[in-house]
Amino acid sequence: MLSSSDNNEIFLGIDGGGSKCKAIVMSGNNKILGTGIAGPANPLHGYEQAINSITEAAELALKDAGIDENKLGNFVAGVGLAGVNLPILFEKMTNWQHPFKRMFLATDLLIACLGAHDGKDGAVMITGTGSCGFSFVGGHPYIVGAHGFPHGDKGSGAWFGLKAAKKVLMSLDGMIPPSTLNDKILALLNVNNDVELVEVIAGKPAAFYARMANLVFDSAEEGDEVALEIVNEGAGYINHVAKQLLKLDPPGISLIGGLTPRIKPWLATELQQQLLEPINPPEVGAVIFAKQQLALL
Amino acid sequence: MLSSSDNNEIFLGIDGGGSKCKAIVMSGNNKILGTGIAGPANPLHGYEQAINSITEAAELALKDAGIDENKLGNFVAGVGLAGVNLPILFEKMTNWQHPFKRMFLATDLLIACLGAHDGKDGAVMITGTGSCGFSFVGGHPYIVGAHGFPHGDKGSGAWFGLKAAKKVLMSLDGMIPPSTLNDKILALLNVNNDVELVEVIAGKPAAFYARMANLVFDSAEEGDEVALEIVNEGAGYINHVAKQLLKLDPPGISLIGGLTPRIKPWLATELQQQLLEPINPPEVGAVIFAKQQLALL
Repeated sequence: MLSSSDNNEIFLGIDGGGSKCKAIVMSGNNKILGTGIAGPANPLHGYEQAINSITEAAELALKDAGIDENKLGNFVAGVGLAGVNLPILFEKMTNWQHPFKRMFLATDLLIACLGAHDGKDGAVMITGTGSCGFSFVGGHPYIVGAHGFPHGDKGSGAWFGLKAAKKVLMSLDGMIPPSTLNDKILALLNVNNDVELVEVIAGKPAAFYARMANLVFDSAEEGDEVALEIVNEGAGYINHVAKQLLKLDPPGISLIGGLTPRIKPWLATELQQQLLEPINPPEVGAVIFAKQQLALL
Repeated sequence: MLSSSDNNEIFLGIDGGGSKCKAIVMSGNNKILGTGIAGPANPLHGYEQAINSITEAAELALKDAGIDENKLGNFVAGVGLAGVNLPILFEKMTNWQHPFKRMFLATDLLIACLGAHDGKDGAVMITGTGSCGFSFVGGHPYIVGAHGFPHGDKGSGAWFGLKAAKKVLMSLDGMIPPSTLNDKILALLNVNNDVELVEVIAGKPAAFYARMANLVFDSAEEGDEVALEIVNEGAGYINHVAKQLLKLDPPGISLIGGLTPRIKPWLATELQQQLLEPINPPEVGAVIFAKQQLALL
C-alpha cells in the first residue's frame, strides 16, 4: 500500500471508447502500477453506461495497483472519451459528479495524439472500428472525419466490413461476379445465402461490421479484385487524411488503432516511411493531458 | 349497409410496409368501396406493431366503406407485407391468429407486381425509401436486392440521402470541393456545420435519410457534379436491375415507389421507353392475389 503522501504523484488515465474503457494507474516516475478494463464508455451511446464504465475501470486499475479501490477521490484523473467532440456531450460529462479528486476531460483523439507523441505536438490517424485524423499543433486541435458509421468513418473496420457485405450481396444477386469474399463472409457469419446474410447483418452496429474487415485484407492479399478495389479505396482515403493533416506541419504523424497492421502496407510508400511508432497508448496520453492541465493552473 | 350475401364478393386488400399500412375494401366488380391507413407493418421492425397496424387499417377501410368495422371475420384478406421474404417472418405471420375469414399472405413485392400488371406475369422495380427488383414469370418469383439499409437498397431514397450526407461531410472536412448539396442538406436539417450534422443524422433509420433524396436530384438537375455522380451511380444500378429482370422475359416491366418521378428521367432511354405505367396499386394487387389463391383451392 502506498502512503497518502504519494497520492499527488499518482494519476489515473482513462481512455473510453465505444466498445471498452481502459484505465491505468501511473506513478510519479511514469510507471504503470495497475490497469483496468470495463465496458463501453462513449456517452453518445448511453450516459449512464459511460460513467459506470469509467468508474469501474478506474476502480479495477486501483485494485490492480494494490490501492484501495474506494479511494478514487484521492486521485486526479485524465479522461479521454469518444463522443465528447460533440459540445452537448462534453458539457454533460463535465457536469458529471465524478468520483475523482479532479477530472480533466478531453476527446479520445487528443489523448491518443498526446500519448503517441509523448505530450508534444503531432498528428495521429486512427483506424479501428471507426476512423479519423487528428492533429494538435501549437495548441490547436484539428479533426478530419470522426463522423461515425455508416455516414462517415471511411477506411475504418466498419467501413471495410460494410463494403464487403455490399459486394457479397450484389454478387449473390448476380449483379457482379463472385469474389473470394463471398465464401469468407458467409463462413464467418455462419450463413448460406443472401436471405440469411441479411437476417444476420440487418440493424447491426459498427463493431459488428468491423469483424469482417480482416477478411477484406485477406482476400486483397490473395489478389482478389473486388477486395483490392475496396482496400485501395480505403487506403486512398487514409492517404488523403494524412495529406490534410500534414498541411498543418505536425512534427510527427502516427497511425494507431486495431486496423493499423492490416492497412499500413497499403498506404502510399512515402507515408509509410513517414509514420512514427506511437510512443505511448492513449490512456497514458490521458495522464499526460491531466499533468499538462494541472501545470497550467 | 351491404347484405351478408355480398360478402363473398367483397375482399380486403392490404399493403403493409415499413412506414405505413394501406387497406382497401374492394367490391365484386373491382370498385374500391373504402380505404384505411395505419402505422408501420413490417414485422421485421416489430410483430405486435405490424399485426396492430394491419387490423387497424382493415377496420378503418371497412368503416370507410360503410361496413361494420367489427366484421373483419366476414371477409377474405389478401395481405402483402414487407419483411416476409424472410422465411422466419413469413412463418410467424402465417401463424398469426388473424381476425379475417381467411388470410392469404404474400410479400409486398408480389402484390406490387400483381397490381402493376393486373394479375398477369411481369416485373417491377421499386424505388422508395428502399429499393429492389422483382419478377413473377410462370409462377416463379425472382428478387434482386430488397436487402435493406445501409448494406443494400442501392438507388433507393435512403441510399441517395446517405450518399449526399457522406459527400457533405467530406466537403466540410475539406476533403472534396463544396457542392450545392452542402447548403441544401444543412438547410433541410437546420444545422450549421459538420458536428451539428453528425448529431442530427447519427443512428437515424432509412426513412430519415430518404428525406434528403430529393435534394440530390434538385442539385443534379442544376448540373452539380457531385450530385450528378450520385444520381448516375444510382440510376446505373436501377438500369442494371432492369437488365437482370428482363433476362427472364417478363411480358412487362414497371417502375413504382415514391422516387419514381425523380429517378425515371435518369434511366437509360431504352428502359424509360419500355416502362409500363402500373395498372393498379399494390393493395389492389393484394386482392388479386387473394382471388388467385382462392381459385386454386
